[in-house]
Amino acid sequence: MITEPSLEYRELVSERIRQALKMGQWQDAVALLQHLHPADRTEVFEELSPEEQQALIQHLGVENLAELLEWLDEEEAAEIAQGLDTAQLADVLDEMDPDEAADLLGDLRPEQARQALAEMEEAEEVRPLLGYPDETAGGLMTTAYVALPRSATLEEAIAFLRSIDPDTDIPNYLYVIDENQRLVGVVSLADLLRTTPQTRLEEVMDPKVIYVTADTDQEEAARIMSKYDLSAVPVVDNRQHLVGVITFDDLVEVLEEEATEDIYHLASVSDEDLDPESPLPEQIKGRLPWLYLNTLTALFASWVISNFEHIIAQAAVLALFQSVVAGQGGNTASQNVAMTVRSLALGKISPKNLLRILVKQFLAGLALGLLVGSMVGLGVYFWRGNLYLSLVLGSALVANLALGAVMGVLVPLALKAAGADPALASSILVTAVTDSAGFFIFLSLASRVLDHLK
Amino acid sequence: MITEPSLEYRELVSERIRQALKMGQWQDAVALLQHLHPADRTEVFEELSPEEQQALIQHLGVENLAELLEWLDEEEAAEIAQGLDTAQLADVLDEMDPDEAADLLGDLRPEQARQALAEMEEAEEVRPLLGYPDETAGGLMTTAYVALPRSATLEEAIAFLRSIDPDTDIPNYLYVIDENQRLVGVVSLADLLRTTPQTRLEEVMDPKVIYVTADTDQEEAARIMSKYDLSAVPVVDNRQHLVGVITFDDLVEVLEEEATEDIYHLASVSDEDLDPESPLPEQIKGRLPWLYLNTLTALFASWVISNFEHIIAQAAVLALFQSVVAGQGGNTASQNVAMTVRSLALGKISPKNLLRILVKQFLAGLALGLLVGSMVGLGVYFWRGNLYLSLVLGSALVANLALGAVMGVLVPLALKAAGADPALASSILVTAVTDSAGFFIFLSLASRVLDHLK
Repeated sequence: MITEPSLEYRELVSERIRQALKMGQWQDAVALLQHLHPADRTEVFEELSPEEQQALIQHLGVENLAELLEWLDEEEAAEIAQGLDTAQLADVLDEMDPDEAADLLGDLRPEQARQALAEMEEAEEVRPLLGYPDETAGGLMTTAYVALPRSATLEEAIAFLRSIDPDTDIPNYLYVIDENQRLVGVVSLADLLRTTPQTRLEEVMDPKVIYVTADTDQEEAARIMSKYDLSAVPVVDNRQHLVGVITFDDLVEVLEEEATEDIYHLASVSDEDLDPESPLPEQIKGRLPWLYLNTLTALFASWVISNFEHIIAQAAVLALFQSVVAGQGGNTASQNVAMTVRSLALGKISPKNLLRILVKQFLAGLALGLLVGSMVGLGVYFWRGNLYLSLVLGSALVANLALGAVMGVLVPLALKAAGADPALASSILVTAVTDSAGFFIFLSLASRVLDHLK
Repeated sequence: MITEPSLEYRELVSERIRQALKMGQWQDAVALLQHLHPADRTEVFEELSPEEQQALIQHLGVENLAELLEWLDEEEAAEIAQGLDTAQLADVLDEMDPDEAADLLGDLRPEQARQALAEMEEAEEVRPLLGYPDETAGGLMTTAYVALPRSATLEEAIAFLRSIDPDTDIPNYLYVIDENQRLVGVVSLADLLRTTPQTRLEEVMDPKVIYVTADTDQEEAARIMSKYDLSAVPVVDNRQHLVGVITFDDLVEVLEEEATEDIYHLASVSDEDLDPESPLPEQIKGRLPWLYLNTLTALFASWVISNFEHIIAQAAVLALFQSVVAGQGGNTASQNVAMTVRSLALGKISPKNLLRILVKQFLAGLALGLLVGSMVGLGVYFWRGNLYLSLVLGSALVANLALGAVMGVLVPLALKAAGADPALASSILVTAVTDSAGFFIFLSLASRVLDHLK
């Protein structure tokens, strides 16, 4: 019985591996690493310097190396694989799960991938997976599944499972196919255990097996697995032939990936592989374009203000509060963008509710605007003692929050309808509107009562 | 073989159910609903009016109703359960999975829950689950697992599994316990199938079973399952006794819940059950407090500007660009907040990297500041033709973006270290700093060259 080793323990192991490597005690270093669960092994390995990693790889052996590459980040795995010679790489790929091997091959230079594939013994398990785009069900699925004909008996099925190499994991579901290789049902191992040996698969299978097609977007495939509580989903081609299975670890990975993507895109970071430790050039590449776009919209807002420059010159107090109107409209809008983007991702919004949602959010924005506007109006009245200023500020807040609330729903839905990612540009587009409109509403209202504001 | 029915089809079914109900053809209505997968059944059911739902519930029967409540949203399930009488409710709870029954009981009035529990036949399966807080491993786990003594043979294990009611799902893993009920290993059904009948469980079990304790936070439990690729994880109490199992559907639910929570909290929405269609009072309750807090920080920024009011009165042009400095600092900070919060959630940041991250993000902020600052400086020079204005604006942007980048990492990490949720208040705290500092830096630089700006 084990639990996750503490950070301190993992650091201790890295340190001991480091020492063993320094003293040339390769076997000790390998043993220290192998003693850990592969998930922790990967973390400890990542703590080592590139030279130490290289030294260790030389002594890991094919099986251990294959396992390490399966658990490492895709980029790091590709980096290590690039350093292997073709024969070594082919052996390692043969040991890996077919879907992991296919992913790795996809990350290598085409020439190296071609050569390795040519030398692989089990290339035929991997080759069919290479044709599918990364972000589709086909790109996620593995060919390591068990499919049996509908006429097979349970006894035959069990005999087949027993014939599988004991080192290979057996999936928890068997898929049943007809004489044309078409998927017709699913049987769980639990069902196998509970019935008599002579029963045929077609008698115990669940014919209502839920499937996805190979070209289904990975996010959609994950949504289906999550909706139907499936720990594995079979993938068929356009002739309904079973071509692979997506397993629950892929589901988890996609869910985490898509959540990261949405969180990053909502904050205008377009590269979901970035983290605070990523190299500078990547930070700039994933962030600058959106800051630039944002800057352009901010300069447009500056232009809006410039039309009121003469008014601000007469009542500089306006410069104090214009940003409050713009900013709170933006915040209200961001709240709605977040809710809308997430509801879209979880499949909770259907187009037919659009009008109802817009009306509700207009009302919510109005209510929030009244509550924020009256607080600000009152506070500023006590501070500056000018009723006109308070009224202008309060009314502008009401209008801009209502506008922000509507835009916060409308913009992501419009982007989605246009086939774009609703998360990525929504914030920028929406705040472009709430900034410019906020300044305009506040300053043009102020210009009507300018004499009272000086 | 089935796939997800289209929206149109589901609407067609709702319509036909509606008609059947209207004509009093209860059996037809129930049959139409039961024909669907439970996941779709729930969606169709939700489309019906409260009166139609009520009429249908009367005729569903205990088993169907139990299944419906398992698949419905917690809140809707609780609403329906509240309308049942005690005997009915007890029967339905008996039919439900123990963890679902416990969740439902937790959502009812204590008095109703107590009475229903007293009338349940399988109360002893549910009672142990009621003591654990909702957001812990104990709150997620089910008692519907199979645990066998280490001395049991495979033959005995299979005989035991066959004795389980055929309507009950058998989990894919058996847990092995010692004479003191302590968890000592795990055996998969696949392992059972592959070994000889006389082998004892302790010979084939994996003793390195990964577990969590009942008081582990649900997010942490989900992280462990995800890290180690576990489709189920056993839960033990503080004496290492096996008390439950968390299954993969709970993992998926937690991952989605936690992602929603982070996305909402980053946008200052504190109620993760909100969506654009939620009732107005809930919208206001989940959003207003954060808008108010934000307003307070915005008014503080107004106060910062008020110290430069006399300068703005002399050079109103400053009011055009002050928000650009504040806003772009805020955007840079938000990018870092998103990356930091996500890296924390995925367990990718360790405290010992803090200094390295801060230095890297300071440099990234500086670089982004130089790139944004020079673009804005240049653009504004062409627009207004004032070199001093451009230089002040550009330098203020460099300073504020560097500050924003550092704060965007520091604030969520500080909140996390203080035991708070790094997602929730980070945006507000960080933009409070970048707004106030942005205005201050820009306006105080401007005051030094005021004569050139008039």
